[in-house]
Amino acid sequence: MSDSPWKTAADRRSEREEKRIAVLRTAAQAFNELGYHATSLDDIARRLNVTKPTIYYYVKNKEEILFECVRIGLEMLDSASNDVTGHGGSAYDELVAVMITYVDIVTIDFGMCVIRVGEEPLTEDSRRTLRGLKRRIDLKFRSLIERGIAEGSIVPCDPKIAAFTLSGALSWVARWYSPDGDLDPAEIARQSIALLLNGLRPRPDMG
Amino acid sequence: MSDSPWKTAADRRSEREEKRIAVLRTAAQAFNELGYHATSLDDIARRLNVTKPTIYYYVKNKEEILFECVRIGLEMLDSASNDVTGHGGSAYDELVAVMITYVDIVTIDFGMCVIRVGEEPLTEDSRRTLRGLKRRIDLKFRSLIERGIAEGSIVPCDPKIAAFTLSGALSWVARWYSPDGDLDPAEIARQSIALLLNGLRPRPDMG
Repeated sequence: MSDSPWKTAADRRSEREEKRIAVLRTAAQAFNELGYHATSLDDIARRLNVTKPTIYYYVKNKEEILFECVRIGLEMLDSASNDVTGHGGSAYDELVAVMITYVDIVTIDFGMCVIRVGEEPLTEDSRRTLRGLKRRIDLKFRSLIERGIAEGSIVPCDPKIAAFTLSGALSWVARWYSPDGDLDPAEIARQSIALLLNGLRPRPDMG
Repeated sequence: MSDSPWKTAADRRSEREEKRIAVLRTAAQAFNELGYHATSLDDIARRLNVTKPTIYYYVKNKEEILFECVRIGLEMLDSASNDVTGHGGSAYDELVAVMITYVDIVTIDFGMCVIRVGEEPLTEDSRRTLRGLKRRIDLKFRSLIERGIAEGSIVPCDPKIAAFTLSGALSWVARWYSPDGDLDPAEIARQSIALLLNGLRPRPDMG
């Protein structure tokens, strides 16, 4: 910010974007708690201490809000895998890192909204766009698993089924995890991922 | 059925029940394909070659249909675990059998509707009833895991997190599985369950 009491156009733009994100985040929280259909724009306005017309200054309607919430959540999940790749670790190590971040993301706001609400209530066009993003995330899981199988760090398996099994188990956390419950998301991630890596059947190589 | 051309009251009751189940099953298929909100009673009537008033003879409204579809799906999942218990096998063996049946159920009609649609669109009262059924299924998974840990057939873990991880992975199959796809549900179940039992990390005891 400059010292001038008049805001620059850039200041105004970033302030508007910040407020828009606050509207979307509050909406995501309401959708996750109450369900999409049970949440009204009035509920969202009330949580932000503003009026409904203020909300309309930032978004067109409830459908646009959900589309943006799911899109942002999916972009976060997608970039989670970008952050860990190319550090020279094994595909197994990279996959573990992606899984940890995945649980992190699906237990809050936008990520949780991807799983709890998803694209189902939207128009076919919007659903197609969001399904395209989902496919990208799925393909990254698959290619990590393929690389792991090739290098021997991951057990031979069908990468497609394995990718869906992993993302299913981790996505499900968003359904049952409660921020008021007695389990901490980091502990859930640790145990759930350990089970997926080591299996339910005791290993002779572990204590 | 008796030889008399006049149906008995019992015949009429069972015929009515059979037709009611056909209405529910067709509705579940439509919900799974198109989504709950995008499916109208007209769509369901059209698939059955009947008129909408005929549908109303068997069910009150779309909410009742969804409630019944999810309730039947959950009852099927619940009784899956009753069928395998008490045969003297290890908890691990019982859990494997429950998991196989679980995937079977969530890849068709009512079971798929539990996962793809679920209770979210319903009233708080209905949601509470269905959540109670879900809890019962979850507790059965947990107690099998607890027994397995105690007898050494299952790796030491938090039974709550493990139960959610397993049911999450297997429930997710209902989301991505396509009856027109190239993967057979039995093959999906086999591979997905093998991964959950043995883990992603190669085992020294396996080839």
